[in-house]
Amino acid sequence: MLEELKKRVYDANMQLPLHGLVTFTWGNASEIDRKSGIFAIKPSGVDYDKLKPEDMVLVDLEGRIVEGRLRPSTDMPTHLRLYQAYSGIGGVVHTHSSWAVSWAQACRSIPCYGTTHADYFYGEIPCTRRLTQEEIEEAYELHTGDVIIETLGKRNPLEMPGILCANHGPFTWGTDGAAAVYHAVVLEEVAKMACRTELLNAGVQPAPQYLQDKHYQRKHGAGAYYGQKA
Amino acid sequence: MLEELKKRVYDANMQLPLHGLVTFTWGNASEIDRKSGIFAIKPSGVDYDKLKPEDMVLVDLEGRIVEGRLRPSTDMPTHLRLYQAYSGIGGVVHTHSSWAVSWAQACRSIPCYGTTHADYFYGEIPCTRRLTQEEIEEAYELHTGDVIIETLGKRNPLEMPGILCANHGPFTWGTDGAAAVYHAVVLEEVAKMACRTELLNAGVQPAPQYLQDKHYQRKHGAGAYYGQKA
Amino acid sequence: MLEELKKRVYDANMQLPLHGLVTFTWGNASEIDRKSGIFAIKPSGVDYDKLKPEDMVLVDLEGRIVEGRLRPSTDMPTHLRLYQAYSGIGGVVHTHSSWAVSWAQACRSIPCYGTTHADYFYGEIPCTRRLTQEEIEEAYELHTGDVIIETLGKRNPLEMPGILCANHGPFTWGTDGAAAVYHAVVLEEVAKMACRTELLNAGVQPAPQYLQDKHYQRKHGAGAYYGQKA
Amino acid sequence: MLEELKKRVYDANMQLPLHGLVTFTWGNASEIDRKSGIFAIKPSGVDYDKLKPEDMVLVDLEGRIVEGRLRPSTDMPTHLRLYQAYSGIGGVVHTHSSWAVSWAQACRSIPCYGTTHADYFYGEIPCTRRLTQEEIEEAYELHTGDVIIETLGKRNPLEMPGILCANHGPFTWGTDGAAAVYHAVVLEEVAKMACRTELLNAGVQPAPQYLQDKHYQRKHGAGAYYGQKA
Repeated sequence: MLEELKKRVYDANMQLPLHGLVTFTWGNASEIDRKSGIFAIKPSGVDYDKLKPEDMVLVDLEGRIVEGRLRPSTDMPTHLRLYQAYSGIGGVVHTHSSWAVSWAQACRSIPCYGTTHADYFYGEIPCTRRLTQEEIEEAYELHTGDVIIETLGKRNPLEMPGILCANHGPFTWGTDGAAAVYHAVVLEEVAKMACRTELLNAGVQPAPQYLQDKHYQRKHGAGAYYGQKA
Repeated sequence: MLEELKKRVYDANMQLPLHGLVTFTWGNASEIDRKSGIFAIKPSGVDYDKLKPEDMVLVDLEGRIVEGRLRPSTDMPTHLRLYQAYSGIGGVVHTHSSWAVSWAQACRSIPCYGTTHADYFYGEIPCTRRLTQEEIEEAYELHTGDVIIETLGKRNPLEMPGILCANHGPFTWGTDGAAAVYHAVVLEEVAKMACRTELLNAGVQPAPQYLQDKHYQRKHGAGAYYGQKA
Repeated sequence: MLEELKKRVYDANMQLPLHGLVTFTWGNASEIDRKSGIFAIKPSGVDYDKLKPEDMVLVDLEGRIVEGRLRPSTDMPTHLRLYQAYSGIGGVVHTHSSWAVSWAQACRSIPCYGTTHADYFYGEIPCTRRLTQEEIEEAYELHTGDVIIETLGKRNPLEMPGILCANHGPFTWGTDGAAAVYHAVVLEEVAKMACRTELLNAGVQPAPQYLQDKHYQRKHGAGAYYGQKA
Repeated sequence: MLEELKKRVYDANMQLPLHGLVTFTWGNASEIDRKSGIFAIKPSGVDYDKLKPEDMVLVDLEGRIVEGRLRPSTDMPTHLRLYQAYSGIGGVVHTHSSWAVSWAQACRSIPCYGTTHADYFYGEIPCTRRLTQEEIEEAYELHTGDVIIETLGKRNPLEMPGILCANHGPFTWGTDGAAAVYHAVVLEEVAKMACRTELLNAGVQPAPQYLQDKHYQRKHGAGAYYGQKA
């Protein structure tokens, strides 16, 4: 069932260690088939070098396991909430990549200091508030999804394709699993450079808004001219 | 004698340079066979690329060499003390991995700033006091073991599977040699991210205790639900 | 047409990910054939592992595309301006390499703290002013070239073969594409070491001018004696 | 002539990029044959991937080239001075490895913060004073050797097998070329960890002298017990 989707999600997961974003099993990628309302996600705690496409677990939009011998990632309910809330996204990724985690542990949003950031993330990359003890005890992973949605607020999730969960780490998303992986790589790179930028200039200010607008628009706006025509 | 154990300890040692934890010969792993009360450990100062399973040295729980053409690691008495004190542990690792050593040289414990830490180490990862001149002159490596035990105090060593020795570096342990290696990798990653967290937020506080509890328990508690059922 | 030039520019571009200067498609190299007044440049947004020599786009010194099925890099007008202004340069490179970007985002020039810097860049590596909103809206990439030229001022571009564009990243150049790549590598290394130098000594001063003179001259001056005779 | 020596020096040089200490051609290793009073050294500015054993240049203890088609490294006179001054050393290495250069550019000696340092360098690794303009103009590379000797003073060069030249970078040495390479690797690792130690504890003090004594002596003293018996 949905063999092609499982293969795509397998591929997306395998990209995570290749890009140096994952130690051991600390990451997961998923992608949804919007027609059937089913998403495929990595099983929990399985080594990347033993992972096979058929290990991917299929889950529907009410969180029920539709197919799979293995337990899905413990973060599955967070992926679920994001797919429920944002019909425009098709893939979700979670990692413990070290620079993004460092900002998340510092409970800080990442200011937009330059064009590398502005090319993909439109504005400051937000850090959520901490979950309360009640939220954590009741339904930790679902509420992680909720606090992401609360934090994004009125932002278009495709213009802000990632977030930091306080004391935890990054989630990213995109139109499919590969795009979510791409944004996970960008976020890590941006997080690294923003930290070093602050080391070099303690009072540094964000890049001017008009530069942020220009870079985001030349890649994603109506008159985008980066890359090749489709 | 104990050929399988020697092969396992050889494998554990070979993982250390693969994970980037070891420069030259600066690390050692051991594992104990509790039935016979004998542990195997890397020989002292032998290059990893020349190491063979049969080079492993066998030592009993009174520190006597039972088998082996080569001298055991100079840190052998530290491993010994840990096996003597903690019947629940089956493997020990020592490295000079650079982020963990940096905290050890700073004589600082690593606060728990997030879930990556909380998933494996339950609470602050302690740094020992410095050894006294008398302790060092009398029996340096044995007293290194003693000060680890003194510092852990009433903690369960399987809930705090590693420590920093002041001005020296990390020791980690686990139910076997592979688990001790795993914890050495986690400790290095956690040490790196904690340092960067402090760079990003000089006044950062540890993660809330209830978040630490949740993450440790979902991996290790009675109701653990991370990974696959055994 | 100009097949050899395209091959050379292809090779220069392929060096960028090999030296760790480029994530995804974030970089571009070009080289000019001064006889015909035509330069070859990487196409926009094409993956390095799919790039072929024949994909290079040929552009003349008025910015007109002379040959090529694909759009040139969006940064093409910046390369163009540099070739127009400096007849002595033969190659240009742009990357988002992380240490150079960190200085650019901090809006800081890189002081010359030592001989590694002085061997290739004669004096402080300047950071441009920020472009104004008008400049960005009118012709962003052309004005990026203009502000580089404005910032270099009377400096000989072959003695200062690179610059940081504020909130953006580095451009480097040289007598050909390979030299521009070489300077991109040096700039990244120098940017990294200068940041760490400041961490180690907050009040550090630049290297004495006479040491800078000596090192630059022993590699590039009339009596240069580094390397082998041609 | 001295083919075996040239092969050894070639091997030592090739270790430098393997250990990540060298970018492009920025490093050189030499070794001396004390019987003939001749040392072999890398030629100047030759790429490591084109280097061959027969390219090594032979130089005598008065600095005269005895054999070689190519110019020796520009740093040859510094190597020469060290061989003249210290009859106990057999190999010399110079690199621009990035952490050691960062300390050299900061004009700071590296305090001994822990056992990794104490295992190989007995005490603080000194940074030289800056050369004067007169020294640089008269005979830069020879005076670089002189200021190293001046800075080491009464120290035994085999107990302090490396130094930082202010605003420049590290030189290391040892009983042969391979030992000098080994110390270059240790120095880089120690420099990295010392910088991070200071980031983690701004007021950190050096390791107690008795710990430094213990570690240096257990590897190098009369009663050394690290490694295997010869």
